[in-house]
Amino acid sequence: MEFGTPTQKQQYLLPLLRGEIRSTFLMTEPQVASSDPTNLSTVLKKKIVNGKIQYTLTGRKWWSTNAQDPRCRVAVVVAKMDYSDPSCRQQQKSSTAKGKSVKHGAHTIVLVPMPHPGLRVKRSLTVMGYDDAPYGHAEVELNGINLTSEHLVLGEGSGFRVSQARLGPGRIHHCMRAIGMAARAYELMMQRVLERKTFGKYLWEHGGCQEMIADSVADLEAARLLTLSCAAALDDVGPKLARDKIASIKVAVPQMTYRVVDRAIQVHGGAGLSDDFPLARFLAGLRSLQIADGPDAVHKMTVAKLEVKKAAKMVRSRL
Amino acid sequence: MEFGTPTQKQQYLLPLLRGEIRSTFLMTEPQVASSDPTNLSTVLKKKIVNGKIQYTLTGRKWWSTNAQDPRCRVAVVVAKMDYSDPSCRQQQKSSTAKGKSVKHGAHTIVLVPMPHPGLRVKRSLTVMGYDDAPYGHAEVELNGINLTSEHLVLGEGSGFRVSQARLGPGRIHHCMRAIGMAARAYELMMQRVLERKTFGKYLWEHGGCQEMIADSVADLEAARLLTLSCAAALDDVGPKLARDKIASIKVAVPQMTYRVVDRAIQVHGGAGLSDDFPLARFLAGLRSLQIADGPDAVHKMTVAKLEVKKAAKMVRSRL
Amino acid sequence: MEFGTPTQKQQYLLPLLRGEIRSTFLMTEPQVASSDPTNLSTVLKKKIVNGKIQYTLTGRKWWSTNAQDPRCRVAVVVAKMDYSDPSCRQQQKSSTAKGKSVKHGAHTIVLVPMPHPGLRVKRSLTVMGYDDAPYGHAEVELNGINLTSEHLVLGEGSGFRVSQARLGPGRIHHCMRAIGMAARAYELMMQRVLERKTFGKYLWEHGGCQEMIADSVADLEAARLLTLSCAAALDDVGPKLARDKIASIKVAVPQMTYRVVDRAIQVHGGAGLSDDFPLARFLAGLRSLQIADGPDAVHKMTVAKLEVKKAAKMVRSRL
Amino acid sequence: MEFGTPTQKQQYLLPLLRGEIRSTFLMTEPQVASSDPTNLSTVLKKKIVNGKIQYTLTGRKWWSTNAQDPRCRVAVVVAKMDYSDPSCRQQQKSSTAKGKSVKHGAHTIVLVPMPHPGLRVKRSLTVMGYDDAPYGHAEVELNGINLTSEHLVLGEGSGFRVSQARLGPGRIHHCMRAIGMAARAYELMMQRVLERKTFGKYLWEHGGCQEMIADSVADLEAARLLTLSCAAALDDVGPKLARDKIASIKVAVPQMTYRVVDRAIQVHGGAGLSDDFPLARFLAGLRSLQIADGPDAVHKMTVAKLEVKKAAKMVRSRL
Repeated sequence: MEFGTPTQKQQYLLPLLRGEIRSTFLMTEPQVASSDPTNLSTVLKKKIVNGKIQYTLTGRKWWSTNAQDPRCRVAVVVAKMDYSDPSCRQQQKSSTAKGKSVKHGAHTIVLVPMPHPGLRVKRSLTVMGYDDAPYGHAEVELNGINLTSEHLVLGEGSGFRVSQARLGPGRIHHCMRAIGMAARAYELMMQRVLERKTFGKYLWEHGGCQEMIADSVADLEAARLLTLSCAAALDDVGPKLARDKIASIKVAVPQMTYRVVDRAIQVHGGAGLSDDFPLARFLAGLRSLQIADGPDAVHKMTVAKLEVKKAAKMVRSRL
Repeated sequence: MEFGTPTQKQQYLLPLLRGEIRSTFLMTEPQVASSDPTNLSTVLKKKIVNGKIQYTLTGRKWWSTNAQDPRCRVAVVVAKMDYSDPSCRQQQKSSTAKGKSVKHGAHTIVLVPMPHPGLRVKRSLTVMGYDDAPYGHAEVELNGINLTSEHLVLGEGSGFRVSQARLGPGRIHHCMRAIGMAARAYELMMQRVLERKTFGKYLWEHGGCQEMIADSVADLEAARLLTLSCAAALDDVGPKLARDKIASIKVAVPQMTYRVVDRAIQVHGGAGLSDDFPLARFLAGLRSLQIADGPDAVHKMTVAKLEVKKAAKMVRSRL
Repeated sequence: MEFGTPTQKQQYLLPLLRGEIRSTFLMTEPQVASSDPTNLSTVLKKKIVNGKIQYTLTGRKWWSTNAQDPRCRVAVVVAKMDYSDPSCRQQQKSSTAKGKSVKHGAHTIVLVPMPHPGLRVKRSLTVMGYDDAPYGHAEVELNGINLTSEHLVLGEGSGFRVSQARLGPGRIHHCMRAIGMAARAYELMMQRVLERKTFGKYLWEHGGCQEMIADSVADLEAARLLTLSCAAALDDVGPKLARDKIASIKVAVPQMTYRVVDRAIQVHGGAGLSDDFPLARFLAGLRSLQIADGPDAVHKMTVAKLEVKKAAKMVRSRL
Repeated sequence: MEFGTPTQKQQYLLPLLRGEIRSTFLMTEPQVASSDPTNLSTVLKKKIVNGKIQYTLTGRKWWSTNAQDPRCRVAVVVAKMDYSDPSCRQQQKSSTAKGKSVKHGAHTIVLVPMPHPGLRVKRSLTVMGYDDAPYGHAEVELNGINLTSEHLVLGEGSGFRVSQARLGPGRIHHCMRAIGMAARAYELMMQRVLERKTFGKYLWEHGGCQEMIADSVADLEAARLLTLSCAAALDDVGPKLARDKIASIKVAVPQMTYRVVDRAIQVHGGAGLSDDFPLARFLAGLRSLQIADGPDAVHKMTVAKLEVKKAAKMVRSRL
């Protein structure tokens, strides 16, 4: 699926693909429970002046990965439409009329060129003690940034549609990186158990350690197969129909790989918690994946509701 | 791999494949920890009388599934060779000379036609209260059964070789049945959550119930993919090279599917524990799979040792 | 708290305390999700004939433990008041006026002397294959049993009040029995690990087995302390104020003790699943405690709501 | 139990108790698996010169908490005796004669006044990204530090005796701090669930969230009771006889409290991972407690072995 205009692609997408610039995605907000995206309160206020459309973007975002990277040239921002200006009377009515469905049609994605005087990085956040420099995770203020239609992706109210299309593949990508971390952790664990001894035996000779190895093999293999199967489904039926699989692995894979890394840390003792090995950093990363891009609870709800629909259909078809 | 003689195949294998008769496998023994098969103590005593080889089978077995089925026509028995008779002096020496390796070459598989006066079903065992009639799980006495070379499968001392060849596919088969049970349990769970209400909501509308659904979807999918992947490996590289995968899923799949059935029971309330649904029976079956055909601890040890070998090889290759 | 009339005590309570008779408690129903007790649909229909009050009890119950015991002399039944008879016009109005609170005031507890021609044991239920004879768990039909005010406990609409008073101590009692089972299972486990050998070592010498022992010690100790602490609270502040602790241990203790028994089974191998040991029966009993007397989900909800109230109060007090 | 000489107490213990100075404990070493303390390789070499005893301390330690604190005035070091100098011929013999028991009598605790030119802080370690400044966790080099008998605690070879006496109360203290962290995390969780909303409901109204609250209450209560009970045992029977309880809670309490903090993080979303709340730091601390002062596997082994001894005694007493 493609959303950008030719100009947007020229300006941002191609340089991104060439690795020349970075982008940052501004969705989550500190002041609301962002796991429910309808809570998002950053505002894109519309005004029509002399028949020309103007927008002003105001709000506060955080967990804006890359925002502090000097190569970052564009912020992709999710904002709620504000039609309260008298010049937008038309849209006020129609949005009220639409009722509940407005909820998911109320957000728009806008592109803010960076650096921008109205976009201020307030501070850098840490994930379990890690600041993940140089790209980092920023809290960002959007102080009345003036924008035009050219900055919108796919037009007003398409925010959720665009986000959903992006989030599916993005979530599989998270799982892939999770598997990479766990595979590396497993490798380090195996090296360690072959090298060190306690109580006259190599670590791997201890029964408890053998259980940790076997459990990790099973977790890693299950994580791999789930991710591969989901990726195949994404290719076959597209992100919309593969939604259930994507939501399911977004929960399962970070948990499985977290367990692998956690065991690898335990096998390494104190060293596993330090930065002499990448294990503690991996654990922080995998813990954050149970929250980032939607907390586990939300994805489980998604899976359950899709399954209930399927089951209800099946029950009806049997009547 | 094929082990039987043409006569053995004619007599037992073909009628088994046609579903006309049943067989029972007698391996586990009540008096020793059979998870270590070198402990098995049922004896196949050899004697050479007038140049003719005779065998006598004596011992006690249990968990002999099917033994009580009236269609059961053959018992496949794992027994330890006993060369203590003076007529076997030759073999006594060679078996002592072989030293430790004798351990795994000390067992033979013999076929006992059933019914047989020397094979007595002592009693029927229950698995968590279920007697699994009509086939059941019997405790069996082998009271000095006289046999000849024609009753041996592949000859003396091939017991482990034959067992291993059988157990690989057998374990995948266990996993397949486990998946079947969990899939059925999941279906029943979905029906139940659509029908019943508590506190003004359908069960599926409760957040905790949604988590149970989502967790079950992930468990079931992982169990399926692990089993399929292992079956593919068995086809590709054979039971010996797929040993690690087989051992791994023999632990993982019964546990994953157990969780699914356990949740389905919880959703059904008291009904789930009763025999109005097959759920409690499934749970008993899946619990027993954590012990039958090798307890989890033994399979984890197998996986760990194979992984350690691989890792040691890799470490050496880097030097 | 005491509820019975002197006659009721004379007739039932004292013989029960002397162990001469048995009682059965009829609450759960097969056709509704009984974890929400407002769902209960067994009906106690009231009629006033010539100024005299008459009741008729009609419905279907199950999991009526002891109902099949020949010594069982009384059924304690939870039933919903039915004031639809024209002679009860007064009560119809008042019950409607009370609105939502009616829900919890709509049930009454009645005593049915047993045996009784209108109370028919339909069948015996199994708990994971166990029929728990001789006392058993029955499904029972109540076919228009005629009763008078003398059969009511504490009068119309006090069903929940009486049940709640009974269920608190009853739930601690469940926990006590759970601890007894786990303690016995632990003892059997320790005997087994001292007796049996695999791979040249006693079971207890294997690292994995040592973990099972240590984990069981911790589970058993935690279960004991939680139960003792809750019993002390019950003595100190009574069942109403100890509600949170009771609900909490009703979930935690069966789970902790279940894990102990589950490990004991694993250590025993196949024998653990059979009836040569009481372990499988214990496991069935402990699994059923996650459902009986309220499923875990309901008790967790209770705990959470009480905690939220406390927290809200604390937050307000800080303003 | 008291170990220091009057001078040592005057110089270090009293100022420590008054909070004027800090100490650092140097046990764990980067190059060996220190969970088996017999592996420790820092050497205290003895020499007798002109009838006078001299010691030289050489080695490398890490996880030396407080070592970087400017108020730190003394390092308490665990070192292995080295009697290889010809002047110690007497002791060489006796230590060889003692055979296996030497293992646990081979270590001595020495006090190194700080700052000291031979004790160099090499670098600061992080625990899951946290450097825990200002006290920190240092890697330390001991470069041939000359000491005398006055620096020894309780004399040569008493290292394990002194360590064991210290570690019991120290481990309970870890559990107490763990409970403090979990209690604070729980409080923050309750505040959060009362404040934030998703999908039209307060967080606490979601079933999944209610389960997290209830599970946390049970974990926290069990952790508290286990710790109190163990502390009472320590008072009653002393650290040696309470060893099993200490080892058991050293495993159980960090795990229980870890789960509470982990849930609190999940409820806070991204904020829980950041340093806006102390939760991520708590999690790092509690994860490290599964390794610090002996990894879980070692404590479980201790519990299991003590339990096996008790059980063996009981079995024997029944014969």
